[in-house]
Amino acid sequence: MDVIKVSSVTGAGELANVIFKSMSREGKVQLRAIGAAAINQAVKAIAISRINFVPYGADVICAPWFSDVYIDHKLKTAITFCVELRWPDEAASAA
Amino acid sequence: MDVIKVSSVTGAGELANVIFKSMSREGKVQLRAIGAAAINQAVKAIAISRINFVPYGADVICAPWFSDVYIDHKLKTAITFCVELRWPDEAASAA
Repeated sequence: MDVIKVSSVTGAGELANVIFKSMSREGKVQLRAIGAAAINQAVKAIAISRINFVPYGADVICAPWFSDVYIDHKLKTAITFCVELRWPDEAASAA
Repeated sequence: MDVIKVSSVTGAGELANVIFKSMSREGKVQLRAIGAAAINQAVKAIAISRINFVPYGADVICAPWFSDVYIDHKLKTAITFCVELRWPDEAASAA
């Protein structure tokens, strides 16, 4: 599964396009963000992705998780979003 | 469905407890956050909620969406997270 690193300056629309390509290929993608500004961009991109998949009848859901990453030998806590497609029959069974 | 307003000073752990109670009752809850700091707290609370539901065999997923809200007569764009439970059979059918 692709892991996309998201920063505070990542464009939400551009990231949504990357998510679209990655998910069209594999059905899933992970986004990794450190800090409130990067997490904000990741969430906005996921929201935009939901629009991108409307013509295909699929919805986009995510499950965030904490993950530890080393950056410049320092331990930081990132949020990793596991982003997946959900099809209508699943949504119906969840209701 | 309950709509919980999340601010930049909302404690993620406390919010996770509120999510747990609300979802135990209704199976779904909405979180509304404006700004990167509040969105950050909402995402962390959802991640903690996934831990809280582990003993019950359920996972927690969310779908973020843009929503317009008026605060002091000014239009602001919020992120509304639709938070739901997912049970193992759904995850299997999605794989």
